[in-house]
Amino acid sequence: MALADPSVRLYMPSWASSTGLRRCGFAGSYEFTLVLSTLGKSATLQQTRSSLGLHPSAPIHPDHDVENYQNLWWPKTKIVLREPLAEFWGTFILVMFGDGSVAQVLLSTGQTTAPGGNGFGAYQSISWGWGIGLMMGIYVAGDSGAYLNPAVTFTNCLFRKLPWRRFPAYFMAQLLGGFVGSGVVYANYISAIDWYEGGHGIRTVPPAPRATAGIFCTYPQPFVTKASQFFSEFIASSLLMFMIFALKDPSNNGVGKSDKWFPLALFFLVFGIGACFGWETGYAINLVRDFGPRLMSYAVGYPHEVWSAGGYYFWIPMVAPFCGCVFGGFLYDLFIYTGDSPVNSPWFGFKRVAHPQRWTREHVQREKDAGLV
Amino acid sequence: MALADPSVRLYMPSWASSTGLRRCGFAGSYEFTLVLSTLGKSATLQQTRSSLGLHPSAPIHPDHDVENYQNLWWPKTKIVLREPLAEFWGTFILVMFGDGSVAQVLLSTGQTTAPGGNGFGAYQSISWGWGIGLMMGIYVAGDSGAYLNPAVTFTNCLFRKLPWRRFPAYFMAQLLGGFVGSGVVYANYISAIDWYEGGHGIRTVPPAPRATAGIFCTYPQPFVTKASQFFSEFIASSLLMFMIFALKDPSNNGVGKSDKWFPLALFFLVFGIGACFGWETGYAINLVRDFGPRLMSYAVGYPHEVWSAGGYYFWIPMVAPFCGCVFGGFLYDLFIYTGDSPVNSPWFGFKRVAHPQRWTREHVQREKDAGLV
Amino acid sequence: MALADPSVRLYMPSWASSTGLRRCGFAGSYEFTLVLSTLGKSATLQQTRSSLGLHPSAPIHPDHDVENYQNLWWPKTKIVLREPLAEFWGTFILVMFGDGSVAQVLLSTGQTTAPGGNGFGAYQSISWGWGIGLMMGIYVAGDSGAYLNPAVTFTNCLFRKLPWRRFPAYFMAQLLGGFVGSGVVYANYISAIDWYEGGHGIRTVPPAPRATAGIFCTYPQPFVTKASQFFSEFIASSLLMFMIFALKDPSNNGVGKSDKWFPLALFFLVFGIGACFGWETGYAINLVRDFGPRLMSYAVGYPHEVWSAGGYYFWIPMVAPFCGCVFGGFLYDLFIYTGDSPVNSPWFGFKRVAHPQRWTREHVQREKDAGLV
Amino acid sequence: MALADPSVRLYMPSWASSTGLRRCGFAGSYEFTLVLSTLGKSATLQQTRSSLGLHPSAPIHPDHDVENYQNLWWPKTKIVLREPLAEFWGTFILVMFGDGSVAQVLLSTGQTTAPGGNGFGAYQSISWGWGIGLMMGIYVAGDSGAYLNPAVTFTNCLFRKLPWRRFPAYFMAQLLGGFVGSGVVYANYISAIDWYEGGHGIRTVPPAPRATAGIFCTYPQPFVTKASQFFSEFIASSLLMFMIFALKDPSNNGVGKSDKWFPLALFFLVFGIGACFGWETGYAINLVRDFGPRLMSYAVGYPHEVWSAGGYYFWIPMVAPFCGCVFGGFLYDLFIYTGDSPVNSPWFGFKRVAHPQRWTREHVQREKDAGLV
Repeated sequence: MALADPSVRLYMPSWASSTGLRRCGFAGSYEFTLVLSTLGKSATLQQTRSSLGLHPSAPIHPDHDVENYQNLWWPKTKIVLREPLAEFWGTFILVMFGDGSVAQVLLSTGQTTAPGGNGFGAYQSISWGWGIGLMMGIYVAGDSGAYLNPAVTFTNCLFRKLPWRRFPAYFMAQLLGGFVGSGVVYANYISAIDWYEGGHGIRTVPPAPRATAGIFCTYPQPFVTKASQFFSEFIASSLLMFMIFALKDPSNNGVGKSDKWFPLALFFLVFGIGACFGWETGYAINLVRDFGPRLMSYAVGYPHEVWSAGGYYFWIPMVAPFCGCVFGGFLYDLFIYTGDSPVNSPWFGFKRVAHPQRWTREHVQREKDAGLV
Repeated sequence: MALADPSVRLYMPSWASSTGLRRCGFAGSYEFTLVLSTLGKSATLQQTRSSLGLHPSAPIHPDHDVENYQNLWWPKTKIVLREPLAEFWGTFILVMFGDGSVAQVLLSTGQTTAPGGNGFGAYQSISWGWGIGLMMGIYVAGDSGAYLNPAVTFTNCLFRKLPWRRFPAYFMAQLLGGFVGSGVVYANYISAIDWYEGGHGIRTVPPAPRATAGIFCTYPQPFVTKASQFFSEFIASSLLMFMIFALKDPSNNGVGKSDKWFPLALFFLVFGIGACFGWETGYAINLVRDFGPRLMSYAVGYPHEVWSAGGYYFWIPMVAPFCGCVFGGFLYDLFIYTGDSPVNSPWFGFKRVAHPQRWTREHVQREKDAGLV
Repeated sequence: MALADPSVRLYMPSWASSTGLRRCGFAGSYEFTLVLSTLGKSATLQQTRSSLGLHPSAPIHPDHDVENYQNLWWPKTKIVLREPLAEFWGTFILVMFGDGSVAQVLLSTGQTTAPGGNGFGAYQSISWGWGIGLMMGIYVAGDSGAYLNPAVTFTNCLFRKLPWRRFPAYFMAQLLGGFVGSGVVYANYISAIDWYEGGHGIRTVPPAPRATAGIFCTYPQPFVTKASQFFSEFIASSLLMFMIFALKDPSNNGVGKSDKWFPLALFFLVFGIGACFGWETGYAINLVRDFGPRLMSYAVGYPHEVWSAGGYYFWIPMVAPFCGCVFGGFLYDLFIYTGDSPVNSPWFGFKRVAHPQRWTREHVQREKDAGLV
Repeated sequence: MALADPSVRLYMPSWASSTGLRRCGFAGSYEFTLVLSTLGKSATLQQTRSSLGLHPSAPIHPDHDVENYQNLWWPKTKIVLREPLAEFWGTFILVMFGDGSVAQVLLSTGQTTAPGGNGFGAYQSISWGWGIGLMMGIYVAGDSGAYLNPAVTFTNCLFRKLPWRRFPAYFMAQLLGGFVGSGVVYANYISAIDWYEGGHGIRTVPPAPRATAGIFCTYPQPFVTKASQFFSEFIASSLLMFMIFALKDPSNNGVGKSDKWFPLALFFLVFGIGACFGWETGYAINLVRDFGPRLMSYAVGYPHEVWSAGGYYFWIPMVAPFCGCVFGGFLYDLFIYTGDSPVNSPWFGFKRVAHPQRWTREHVQREKDAGLV
């Protein structure tokens, strides 16, 4: 199928105008603009996707001629699950690099045989690891919007018209990606973990002196109070979301931006959060990057302390990122964003709370008209 | 409102020609070229903005349809205060990352439980923090020109025809951004500061051995003389402004530049200033990044030494950045810049000093003709 | 020859359509799209190139007017060997920077006269070295596709229609590049190696306490089992190939990508692999970067342990990268890629195994029709 | 003067065709393509520039309307000296950042009051300093080609048709830039140098234990033989030039390049040279970056050892960069470059040696015809 194929345009939803193309992209997009025209004709496939909460048409590059193999079982399944697969692999890559960097730095701490004589990395390597992980994850998961974080997906549903029906499938894919990605890191470093913990199968959790559970999920510093734990995660998540909305805002006259710059900018953003707000609680800022690996570490034999450590700290990186991201996105829309947002509507959009059923009905109708459901 | 709406062009000031678009952007721009056509019709809004010293029309992306909500109280206020809000949040982000990085590195110094066994960062992390903070601040504040530094605003008024009337509102917004941003960092690290200082509510200023005041504003090294203090800040500020003008110069044949590259280039510039001229006085190079947080730290309970330390050093990062930036901008225009600048006029522009009233009258008239006031 | 010369188009193979241009580039390309029109007429030159397994026409920029010197002996040879020369120099540059960084960090470990008082670099410098080496190597070897790694070439033959006939010439050139590049590093650091090992001509292999063989090729950590050695290299190679395919995929709606970003993205990718999976086995992930320098080090006098160390570890960085890259490429095509790939065909492309001879005959015929042979 | 002014084209030299635009830029360019049309009419100005060896027309952006001030004394002088001024300030910036980073790291070695507890930077900060210095220098000096290194200018004269008449003015400007830039660094750190050396006015040269002369120019490691000193500088300079030619080559199909990427790529290149080949001799790779500051340090009171240290090492970073750059450029043209180069001519261009006078006469005539003289 050539780019000039007119059917590409025909099957584009009404909002995918030429200006819509600019709105498109990671985490700030309404929805995808490139949709598959050919498969648009296959009614069953569309229905299956809709029943999963996904856009009826899968986002596929118009150069890619899927007609050749759309009758094969797996390629068809792959197209049905296109966005969840992208989110799975994007989160997988994020956690592989992130947890991998913690593993390497922690397990090789102080090793004098290293070149340079002091281990295979320093704390800064972990900033690099998570920054590169997110950058690479975005490059992998562009077709699904590259949210890679349920709190970011959630905030986009709230403020950027991403349909709520997308949330469950995205969430499951992201969580699974975090679980499996950290599992591969564990498998890769299993003999080194034995060596570091001091014996085969010994697994301990901070603040134990040779604990390795911190490779996979975050544990707070001992002196940090519960309120400070929450506040630290909340602040870091707000920063994340505030900046994502800023980077996706087509405004900002005089400071050119483009989607090409987005992955690099996110590298710097996450590097900065790690260097500036990464000490007290380890900057989880993402449920699936923390809860997924925590579950994995519990499953492979780390003791009950993965949950109880830090005064049952584990729920904070589950809840705080949602609160922080919503707050950060709200701040941006309240003070800077001039585009279409509930915050830029009467009563800051809270009016819908008064008549939730009517609002929901009308909202779903609008999505149906736009072909998003 | 579509991009092709002809009214966008109608309301553009006369200087906003197609070549003008290239002149546009952070810190080296004459003024914004994208202006709101719709709100241009609302005379009251224009007058309020003018009375604050801002451009009559707010810079809003033509894709953003503000007609929907321009009658609501807050969105209208937001449009009136568009540039000050942008500068506030830009400076806020700058100081959040910058002060946050100092806090993390200082407070975790030598912590052996860190991955790598030696704290959560090194001096270099602070270069990263300020560099990323500026980069992210520019991405946030593009609509206002992203000056984020009153000395940079000042130099643009002097050499790049930014109207002087803009200065007060920009300055207040920047100062407030620095104050509030550092306050959030303080709130985030308050329990860690107690822990590091050795007791609840203890707050000390360098050169006290466990001082934490250096997180928020700069204090000079003890061996540096007053003259060297001033010179160090002066040099660093000159470098900053010289490079900003170079990066904004549309000339430089053969080395392509674009606004897309500007935030990244500023990351490298500030990283470099921190790595090369950051030791003696801590490279404030910005009144609001130093005085704002200093005021904040005094307000929350740091002792009188925040002012008296280093032989009442505190005025140096207030004055030196202005001197340095003006000198750096002057150097660039004197030796390299071939565009429109007072330095490229008879008597290097000093002639206006002879008849200041006449010059001012004519100058304001020209700005009125161009619709800048 | 001007860009508008119509003959440029005439001699382009049939697949080099305008969409083909986008498919083009490092490691994920079908083949080159810019081909030399003038030399296309020289039948002998084409035949010589074909006999080496290369594309009949050499990839030469249309601005470059080779008619002037195509009758000279060396320039003609240079055009015949264009891709192998590019791969040779690309790999040479990769290994120069990579091995050079290990040499500098290892040999200067703990030197107190260094600025900063602790050697001329740390482990992180090695991540920089390999990352920069690959980035620069890609900038050098763009004309040949910049594979720089036989496992990447191999995977492109398997999944991206790079003709298998290309493999031998590319492989030889890459191997030679690794061999010669590491030889130049050895020559450069020979007196420092004598000084570090403790005497003229002493050469030892890890785990000897002052061993320098680790400058050139990788040796595993002592506690890592053979299975973990293989797994570590396998994982790192899979990551490499998975990400290369992702970066070359024209899809990924909303996350813009372009060939201009490719070298920088590979810098981050290899930096990340070094920071996250570089400890256990030294992230060879490339036969020619490990075996080439290993051969060189054996040739210049390192003892037999270069082969026997780590339980005859040397074969792992020869075999694991091939397995890992094929697996990583397979994963990408299985779960994400929607373009033309054997994985997106009936029986995942394994069907060809049933009738290998018929398949090969038809395949070669198709390549001949397309002018690739 | 608008962009559409036809006179801009009229005064462009004949080689400045649309394809020529792509050849343009740092260090690999034939010459500038944007020239000042208006001043082209001022015969005296052209003659003055010609007599200095510069292109008759100064490179000025067509948006910049110099007619306004071309009768003023200084602006006219500035246009006459346009390229030398650009090279001066570019080298100045390069040395400011480079020497500044060495000063900060060396003088603060081991300072425990630093955040992080171990000085204000590490060896890696110096790689950042020189990398950022070059990047910023290129952004400043684009109008002159941003050579910033006489060996690079020399190699461009030899292989890329930069007229030899340009060399003297460029060389003087670069040398002065290095001298003055390092002088400002000295002035900035003078009290810190007194403090580090242990007394007012004490100045020592490595290998003295508290020597500070190494801030300004390079001194070799004690164990390195003279041959290794030369070889190390030679290799690093070859790498530099080889990569500059690669980055400027319009070929490299499939790996997109543009002048916008050049400054960033040079940052990585010089960072890499510093991390991989910066230990033995300090990677001068540039006469003016080493000899200029050396002269300055001798002038301000460093003893005679600045010349005699390392066995009168000082001549090596004067001579080796020229040899290395010529060799590196020769290698690139011999093996990869397919464009217009003496190496791509009969007898690799050495034929001209047989009849030097006739060749020179014809060569100058060609330059005159092209309006380059």
